[in-house]
Amino acid sequence: MADYRLYCMGESGNAYKAALMLELCRLSWEPVWVDFFHGETRTAEYRSTFNEMGEVPVLEHDGKKLSQSGVILDYLTEVTGQFGAKDADERREVWRWILFDNHKFTASLATLRYLIQFAKTGETPVTEFLRARIINALKIVDHHLQDKPFIVGGRPTIADLSMVGYLHYGDELTVPLGDFANVSRWMDAVKALPGWAHPYDLMPSAPGKSSR
Amino acid sequence: MADYRLYCMGESGNAYKAALMLELCRLSWEPVWVDFFHGETRTAEYRSTFNEMGEVPVLEHDGKKLSQSGVILDYLTEVTGQFGAKDADERREVWRWILFDNHKFTASLATLRYLIQFAKTGETPVTEFLRARIINALKIVDHHLQDKPFIVGGRPTIADLSMVGYLHYGDELTVPLGDFANVSRWMDAVKALPGWAHPYDLMPSAPGKSSR
Repeated sequence: MADYRLYCMGESGNAYKAALMLELCRLSWEPVWVDFFHGETRTAEYRSTFNEMGEVPVLEHDGKKLSQSGVILDYLTEVTGQFGAKDADERREVWRWILFDNHKFTASLATLRYLIQFAKTGETPVTEFLRARIINALKIVDHHLQDKPFIVGGRPTIADLSMVGYLHYGDELTVPLGDFANVSRWMDAVKALPGWAHPYDLMPSAPGKSSR
Repeated sequence: MADYRLYCMGESGNAYKAALMLELCRLSWEPVWVDFFHGETRTAEYRSTFNEMGEVPVLEHDGKKLSQSGVILDYLTEVTGQFGAKDADERREVWRWILFDNHKFTASLATLRYLIQFAKTGETPVTEFLRARIINALKIVDHHLQDKPFIVGGRPTIADLSMVGYLHYGDELTVPLGDFANVSRWMDAVKALPGWAHPYDLMPSAPGKSSR
């Protein structure tokens, strides 16, 4: 049995943040597929056993069950010593971008992609609103990256792994990522890390839902 | 001159999270009003001097400029020893709720309140969408609080101060908070903490914008 079990599905960029970290750190881990599209995360059993917030990912390790990708990433830096901050100031900077990701970046990206790709709402006032917010957030990230290879400290950290979570879903995002040259370069730099793999290659996904 | 300067405005629940912490810890602090409604946070100068993310709050202390309310709250627990976690497991639990707040709770609450109260959009598909998301998040918080006085560890922590950030704006929220008995009881418990004050009493606000 693997040391780490990740409750996840390939369609979740939040789960991918954790899966990518586990993979890049060469840890012994296995994905446990959660049937999100048939409501598994919304059942009382899932909520009482795994995560009262009704979300993936959940990481099982050493008798602990951890949820929220930011907490999982931070935990894995503590355990492995990899992709973490080198001092207290840098640690605050890493958390600052993880919070920005959760608040302004992933929050809108994940929701827009869900509506278009899975709920099949088509273009609506809500998708238009979310896309405008994503573009504002992308401008901030692109400006930040104009003179930096990675988000914090000149090297890859969990801030990158958090923020990149949804960006490799390509056309499913319906966002003009190509307009942001620094973001594109940075995505390529993350993709070039030894062990990198696409979310659909790291975690099981539901048949017929994704673009692959 | 005060030890801490908080760049803020009374209308911001995210700034309030930091202001409330400063006040509850009896720190020497002063608010510095940011003219959000005339675009101050979106200027190149604000972004290069204070916060490239174009947001309040920003906390100045000891030569540091910190942004993202979660980082500021965590920093203040380190400096004061107050409202923090007592061990590593509890610390992860505190961060888990701060992330939930940023991702699912404040993200929608702040946006809905902005659209209705300040942008004056009236009811639209976007406000309806956001309100439904808030109600889902409130159900999770209400269920969590059914057997707990506070979010983590049986006592007030920065998880409470983060999550309560927008809830005391009352009618400006256009959310049926009264339907959530455990949330209401918990809000009262936070309000009863010695030193508690309403956001509009802790920070300057723009004339004619708020409901007070």
